[in-house]
Amino acid sequence: MLSFLQGLAQPGGKMVLVVLDGLGGLPHPETGLTELEAARTPNLDRLACQGSCGLSVPVAWGVTPGSGPGHLGLFGYDPQRYVVGRGVLSALGVGVELASRDVAARANFATREGDRIVDRRAGRIPTEECRRLAALVEQRAGQVEDVQVRVYPEMQYRAVVVFRGPGLDPRVTDSDPQATGVPALEVQPRVPEAARMARVANQFLARAWQALEGERPANALLLRGFDRRPDMPQLGELFGLRAAAVAHYPMYRGLARLVGMESFEAGPSVAEAFDRALELWDGYDFLFVHVKGTDSAGEDGDWERKRRIIEEVDAQIPRLVERRPDVLVVTGDHSTPAALRSHSWHPVPLLLWGPRARRDSWVRKFGESDCARGSLGRIRSTDILPLMLAHAGRLAKFGA
Amino acid sequence: MLSFLQGLAQPGGKMVLVVLDGLGGLPHPETGLTELEAARTPNLDRLACQGSCGLSVPVAWGVTPGSGPGHLGLFGYDPQRYVVGRGVLSALGVGVELASRDVAARANFATREGDRIVDRRAGRIPTEECRRLAALVEQRAGQVEDVQVRVYPEMQYRAVVVFRGPGLDPRVTDSDPQATGVPALEVQPRVPEAARMARVANQFLARAWQALEGERPANALLLRGFDRRPDMPQLGELFGLRAAAVAHYPMYRGLARLVGMESFEAGPSVAEAFDRALELWDGYDFLFVHVKGTDSAGEDGDWERKRRIIEEVDAQIPRLVERRPDVLVVTGDHSTPAALRSHSWHPVPLLLWGPRARRDSWVRKFGESDCARGSLGRIRSTDILPLMLAHAGRLAKFGA
Repeated sequence: MLSFLQGLAQPGGKMVLVVLDGLGGLPHPETGLTELEAARTPNLDRLACQGSCGLSVPVAWGVTPGSGPGHLGLFGYDPQRYVVGRGVLSALGVGVELASRDVAARANFATREGDRIVDRRAGRIPTEECRRLAALVEQRAGQVEDVQVRVYPEMQYRAVVVFRGPGLDPRVTDSDPQATGVPALEVQPRVPEAARMARVANQFLARAWQALEGERPANALLLRGFDRRPDMPQLGELFGLRAAAVAHYPMYRGLARLVGMESFEAGPSVAEAFDRALELWDGYDFLFVHVKGTDSAGEDGDWERKRRIIEEVDAQIPRLVERRPDVLVVTGDHSTPAALRSHSWHPVPLLLWGPRARRDSWVRKFGESDCARGSLGRIRSTDILPLMLAHAGRLAKFGA
Repeated sequence: MLSFLQGLAQPGGKMVLVVLDGLGGLPHPETGLTELEAARTPNLDRLACQGSCGLSVPVAWGVTPGSGPGHLGLFGYDPQRYVVGRGVLSALGVGVELASRDVAARANFATREGDRIVDRRAGRIPTEECRRLAALVEQRAGQVEDVQVRVYPEMQYRAVVVFRGPGLDPRVTDSDPQATGVPALEVQPRVPEAARMARVANQFLARAWQALEGERPANALLLRGFDRRPDMPQLGELFGLRAAAVAHYPMYRGLARLVGMESFEAGPSVAEAFDRALELWDGYDFLFVHVKGTDSAGEDGDWERKRRIIEEVDAQIPRLVERRPDVLVVTGDHSTPAALRSHSWHPVPLLLWGPRARRDSWVRKFGESDCARGSLGRIRSTDILPLMLAHAGRLAKFGA
C-alpha cells in the first residue's frame, strides 16, 4: 500500500496529527459516559461537526496494541508487517539512536540465590541504583570480542543493552526465564546465522554476573526481546515530506524517527507540546504531536485525570486551527479505558478536519458514540495517513 | 490471522455464541419490517442497547453463503480458504464422523432408461425406500479392492457414500451429469494421484448399478462433490479453549467438530437447545448454540414462523445473561429472508454484549435497521471470534 501511494505522491499542503495516547474509553458505570464524552471539549466538538468522524481500528478487530504497533499504524505502516521488538522499543524509550545493525535487548536487574532467579525485579531497586549498576556492568563487560556493549539505565530495575559490532543477528532466545525459582536460560541461536550473537550475549552475561557478584539485591542481569530496528521505508522519501514529531517521552520520539521524522522534545505539559509544535510550524509539512497523559491516566484508572488532560488538549486546539492546516487529525493510538486500567482493543475516536473534508453536521460531540455514527465509519488506522495526504492535496489521481 | 491470534492467546473468561440460522431478513412489503424487526424481543433489545451492534458480512459483499461457509466464518475461519466439499457436508449432515483420510461423496438415487439418466431424483422416493436401497447397495458393493465403502441414507433420494482405505485422493470428477437425457459420467482423476480413487469409485458405481438393476424408479446411483474433511487448526490448540456446540441437526454438530468443538445433540425446540447449553455451562469456555428454525421458516417463506422462533430465542436469553458470561454474541450465519425463500448475501444483524463492551445507547431494537447504525459497523464474520476472545480477556497485548 505504501509503495502504491508513493506512486501517487505530489507536493501539497500542511498536515497535523494530534495523538492523545490511549484516547478511547468505556462508559462510566454511573454516568454511562466515556472519559472523552464526559470531557468539556467545545473546540473539538466544533471540529467534529465541521469535519469527518469515525472510529479507528489500530491493528485488527479484537487486538490490543502496544505503543509500537499503535503508532506505526497511525504513521501508515502495517503493524503486523513492521514489528518493533521489545529491545528496540526499550532502546527508543531511553533515547538511544540505534544504527541499523545494532542489536538491542531489554534488561532486568534481578536477584538470584545460587543459580536460581528469586526476584526478576531485584526488589524494584531505585533508579539511582540502576544507574550505578548499569555503569558498573558496562565498565566490566562493555567489550566482548570485537563487539561494543552499552548498558543504558531506565527506571528502577529496567535497563537496555545495545550490542554494536559486525555480524550480529538478533534471532536468539531470551536469557530471562520469565519465572522465578528457576535458573536463567542460556541465550541460544534460533537460526544458524545467529550463533555469534548468542555467544557474545552469553559472554557478556557471564561477565555482567561477575561484576554484580557482591551486590544486593541486584546480583543478576536478565536479557529478553533481542531485536534490531526494522528496515522501514522513510516518510520523507515516500511522500517528499518534511515530518516532525513532538513528544515529551523518548519512546514516541524514537518511534517517529524509525519512519523518518525529525523528533523534538517538549516539556511535560500539554501546552508545552503545542508550544513546540507551533515553533516548528513553518519548517515542516507534517507535524505529529504526542500527548501521553491520557494513556497514563487510563492505566491508573483515573477517570478524572484523563478527562482533564483531554480538556487541556481541547484548549490548545484553536492555536492549531488558526494556523489553517490543510488537514488536522485528532485521534489515539489505541484505547486505554480507565474502566480496564490497561490498553484495549476498542476502536478509537477519530476526527479529520480541514477545508476539503466532508462535514458530519449531525455530530454534536467528539466522542465514541458520535464517532460511531460518523461518515468515516470504522477504518483501519493505516488508512488515516492516506486520507491526510489526500486532504493536503498530496496524492495525484490514480489512473486516467 | 488465526496463527497471529494464536500468538496472543492467554487464559480468560467465558464466551457464548448464539446463532439463529438465516437470521437476517428483508422488509415485509406491507409493514416495512423484517422478520427480526417485527418480532417482540425485549431481552435482545436491552442487550443491543447495553452492548455493541453491527452487521456481519459472512464471506464477502454480495456472496450468499451455504451452511458450511456461514458457520466456518463465525468460528473464525476464512471460508474462502477452508472449503468444506459437498460430500463432506452431506456426511456431517447424517452424523458420520469422518476420519482425516476418508473421502465422502454426495449420492442421488436416480432413474435411468438404458444408459440415459431420465430423473436425477428417482421421483423423490420416500426416505424408507432410500434406507432400504442404501443397505442393499452397501451389502453388494461395500468392499472395492481394499477400500470399505459405506452408504448412508439421507432424506428421500439423497444419500452419502464414504470411501475408507489407503491412498484415496478426492480430486476426481463427478459421475452425476447434473442434467437429464444424457448418460452418467465416468469418474476421472483431476490429478494423477487420484487415479486409484477414480478407479475405486467407478468399480463401486458399476456394482451399485448392478444391485439396483431390478428396482423402480431408483435404478441408478450418481455421485458428486468428492472431498475429504479440510485440515483445520483446532480451536482448543489455537486458543486453549474447551469449546462445546449444541445443535439439533447433525450437520451443525459436524461443522463444529471440524474446528475442534465437542458436539452435543439437543431436542428440536429452542428451549431444549438452551437447556443443554446451560447443563454444559461449567465444563466449557466457549458455548455455541445453534437454532435452525429461523432458516427453515425463511426458506419456506413463512414470515410468521420465523418471527415466532426469534421470539422463542428472546425468551431464553435471560437464562444465559444471568450466568454472566464475559461475552455473549447473538447473530446468524447468513440471511434467509422469507421474502426470498432462500439464503441471501445480505449482512446479518450482530450484537455483542458483556461487561467490557462499548454501549450503543442510541440503539432501540435488535434488528437490521438499528444494527446498521451500531458501533461495530459492517464487519466480516471472521472478525467476530477475535472480538469475543478480546472481550473474554483471552488475547494479550500485541507488541510493547
